[in-house]
Amino acid sequence: MGPGPSDVSARVLGAMARPTLGHLDPDFQRMMEEVKEGLKDLFQTKNRLTFPVSAPGSAGMETCFLNLVEEGDTVIVVRNGVFGDRMRENVVRAGGIAVLVDVEWGKAPDVAVIETVLNANPEAKIVAFVHAETSTGALADAAAICALAQKHNCLTIMDAVTSLGGVPVLIDEWGVDAVYSGSQKCLSCTPGLSPVSLSEKALDKIKARKTPVRSWFLDLSLVMNYWNGEGGRSYHHTAPVNALYGLHESLVILFEEGLGSAIARHKHMHEALVAGLESMGLKFLVDKSCRLPQLNAVVVPEGVDEASVRAHLLKAHSLEIGAGLGPMAGNVWRIGLMGASARRENVELCITALADALNRHQYKTDVTGALKAAHQVLDA
Amino acid sequence: MGPGPSDVSARVLGAMARPTLGHLDPDFQRMMEEVKEGLKDLFQTKNRLTFPVSAPGSAGMETCFLNLVEEGDTVIVVRNGVFGDRMRENVVRAGGIAVLVDVEWGKAPDVAVIETVLNANPEAKIVAFVHAETSTGALADAAAICALAQKHNCLTIMDAVTSLGGVPVLIDEWGVDAVYSGSQKCLSCTPGLSPVSLSEKALDKIKARKTPVRSWFLDLSLVMNYWNGEGGRSYHHTAPVNALYGLHESLVILFEEGLGSAIARHKHMHEALVAGLESMGLKFLVDKSCRLPQLNAVVVPEGVDEASVRAHLLKAHSLEIGAGLGPMAGNVWRIGLMGASARRENVELCITALADALNRHQYKTDVTGALKAAHQVLDA
Repeated sequence: MGPGPSDVSARVLGAMARPTLGHLDPDFQRMMEEVKEGLKDLFQTKNRLTFPVSAPGSAGMETCFLNLVEEGDTVIVVRNGVFGDRMRENVVRAGGIAVLVDVEWGKAPDVAVIETVLNANPEAKIVAFVHAETSTGALADAAAICALAQKHNCLTIMDAVTSLGGVPVLIDEWGVDAVYSGSQKCLSCTPGLSPVSLSEKALDKIKARKTPVRSWFLDLSLVMNYWNGEGGRSYHHTAPVNALYGLHESLVILFEEGLGSAIARHKHMHEALVAGLESMGLKFLVDKSCRLPQLNAVVVPEGVDEASVRAHLLKAHSLEIGAGLGPMAGNVWRIGLMGASARRENVELCITALADALNRHQYKTDVTGALKAAHQVLDA
Repeated sequence: MGPGPSDVSARVLGAMARPTLGHLDPDFQRMMEEVKEGLKDLFQTKNRLTFPVSAPGSAGMETCFLNLVEEGDTVIVVRNGVFGDRMRENVVRAGGIAVLVDVEWGKAPDVAVIETVLNANPEAKIVAFVHAETSTGALADAAAICALAQKHNCLTIMDAVTSLGGVPVLIDEWGVDAVYSGSQKCLSCTPGLSPVSLSEKALDKIKARKTPVRSWFLDLSLVMNYWNGEGGRSYHHTAPVNALYGLHESLVILFEEGLGSAIARHKHMHEALVAGLESMGLKFLVDKSCRLPQLNAVVVPEGVDEASVRAHLLKAHSLEIGAGLGPMAGNVWRIGLMGASARRENVELCITALADALNRHQYKTDVTGALKAAHQVLDA
């Protein structure tokens, strides 16, 4: 129950162990098509360039930035956590100029402030923001930010690593031009793949580039020949065949449940966890209005040694929760309710184990009351 | 039996299906240390920066080039196949200047020619070459090329994607400064990881960089904090946990057999395949003096439609062999004898199936004689 990887089901693990086909095998290519179609449904998009990058989420991020940002391009980067700052780094590595919109960690970006920065930087070509900030658990208003970017003739790059599959992600409706995610969060697949999707407008900007992309491995004009090769795929790199079996199975599982049901389940489990932890007197970092259900940043009570609590959870309860990142280190725990991890038993385990750990750390809690509060939500 | 992925054993597949631990879990970190130690033994090196890049071989290549090549650096690139040309592309993407040493495809690089180019380009900082060219099956004299590069105060970058585990790869003895490989060739792991190793001299060049590496995901100064973090690893990206289980198991299997025995097995199986195919009148592209045992480029007999032969092998015999790449397309088949694929049954299957396919394509063969020739080698 950390910030990902989430629990991986036996079905996905079993899929990982299927015999390895060649990356150009016709049967494998048929599976690639199914993965692409599944990802389109998941991203709610018709974008023809929708596929999983053969590396973790950070490489999906880099795919979007290195392809879309050309030397000298100004990019507005909204930064309200670790991953917003990583976007800034990506802009710099791509040779672009990052103009930051700094937002207090744990808060959602203020659209009016972004507009002010856009007005002051009419040369800006791209607005980049994190939909679900994994370091804090804050959800951005993607629809509003995209509408604003379009008004200013900017493309948008959105980080959906933690949001995809846990809250609505509506790429076409919002008009997101480039989005990346990760396999190991709400999809409950093993880590190592990064689903991405790019709009036609994004592809037009890539086609119009005057300089080559600063990466051969992530250059979409080449990767496309493998993933989108019409009338015959051509070799670019050797795809991680077994990891893709796992992603395929995780998509099958997700659509068996239904995307809407999965999103509702995340919300339900989150509300139960909130009821339990709040009854123990714990506070959440993020305001209810923009709080992610799948990533719960819980404030460490004063006087409690957070690392020692996590060590006890892992040792005594086999339960992993995440530490705070950056300026949040020592101040919050990050409890994931992602994908297969977002289930009743985990809510109960987390409340029970955390109550036990806190009781051993001079923070007295009533575990029976906390479980009762959670069950009231779960059984409602 | 294509040019990789090779056959993946049930043990490696089983390892892929182990429950996913967190990428910062203490037990997982212990396994990471074992993977690093195993790779050091495999590369025959003491290099402290020896680890698997979280993406396929192409990303390992890019890791070496983007970190070592700085804007304006001249790099001598030896090109005798597809992967030499990819090195040139990598130099360009890194902002360097590639000076090519072109060698006929299927031939080993001529060290005297490389020396002439080095003499003509005293500003060169790096010599890059492919140890085992997967597109042709030619083996380079790595010891000689490295000695030459050192004489000219150049660092070396070596592609060992297909060589590692199949022929001797002696990083410290030869003095290779940066080497990358792939998990899916002679290690018989699933595709998706790229073991790399860098010398202290290489790390010094990286430390002295004046401009940031053009990739955040592959920036070794950051990746090191996760893979080599002394006194506590820090998060960089989410490692592909299950893929690393597979790599760990493939290393265990390799060292159970012994590296020397595995290399001898590749040679033995290769000689049996050669005996069988030559008795059928087939010719090998690469001269015996520099021919790789694990990658056999067999010349397509005149009048035979090579794609139709491969399709028959796949359909009737469930046997995949590789097509030619680039200018070799249509002219050669590439038959892999890599890792777990380098075994008696596969040599027999390949001879039998290829004889069947050729007989159906107006190229008459004596399968009994071919098998007898192979068995003479196998049973010697």
